[in-house]
Amino acid sequence: MFEKIAHIGIAVKHMDRAMELFTKLFNVKPRRLEEVWNEKVKTALFEFNGTSIELLEATSPDSSVAKFLEKRGEGVHHISFEVDDIQKEIERLKTLGFQLVNESPRQGADDYLVAFLHPRSTNGVLIEISQKRVPANS
Amino acid sequence: MFEKIAHIGIAVKHMDRAMELFTKLFNVKPRRLEEVWNEKVKTALFEFNGTSIELLEATSPDSSVAKFLEKRGEGVHHISFEVDDIQKEIERLKTLGFQLVNESPRQGADDYLVAFLHPRSTNGVLIEISQKRVPANS
Repeated sequence: MFEKIAHIGIAVKHMDRAMELFTKLFNVKPRRLEEVWNEKVKTALFEFNGTSIELLEATSPDSSVAKFLEKRGEGVHHISFEVDDIQKEIERLKTLGFQLVNESPRQGADDYLVAFLHPRSTNGVLIEISQKRVPANS
Repeated sequence: MFEKIAHIGIAVKHMDRAMELFTKLFNVKPRRLEEVWNEKVKTALFEFNGTSIELLEATSPDSSVAKFLEKRGEGVHHISFEVDDIQKEIERLKTLGFQLVNESPRQGADDYLVAFLHPRSTNGVLIEISQKRVPANS
């Protein structure tokens, strides 16, 4: 089940400048900064009542965010929806004909498991589905 | 004050097909359909815990959504933030050097007053600020 919009990812060229700009715009400070090694990005989160704005800066030229910036420039990169059961949603969406970029969930920012749907099958919008990881000892 | 993310607007070429696609994707039906005459768009809203996905179809070739589709194709068109006092935010943002598309609020969808910031000054993201209208007799 799609439960809520977790965040909107915005690709930026210079994290420092973008953080300053969005801090002025929103009149709030980002909640946290994080480096997601396997995605080759740095992220900064501005929180609004359960849905965040996530700034994304590439940490390597072969990061998908670097490729996006080269092709489209700065702007909205993806929308992330929190789901209750990511594996079940992947199966449901595949059956319906949606194209998954990841058929198995992978590690995302902020301790979430994530999977992307190809924008070809979703009206030009890159959609991420995500599920909060449950700590192993809980 | 920026209180919450009200919605994410997605420009679509064919509302009927897009509604069918997003209904399958989200596994929920849109809450309402509306025509916003002064913006020359039709909108459909899918609600998620206070933040919506708003599909946007142009109703005229000179609508800003038609121009966006021509230039960039289907995809995320804008992010709308609900603010407590739209006039005060317009003044605050102008003072900070942000470029406003509308210096006075105008009528948007779903009984909101809205104003847009130019994406030139906001990292390539078209930002809308919006305030719920208070009925005249309240």
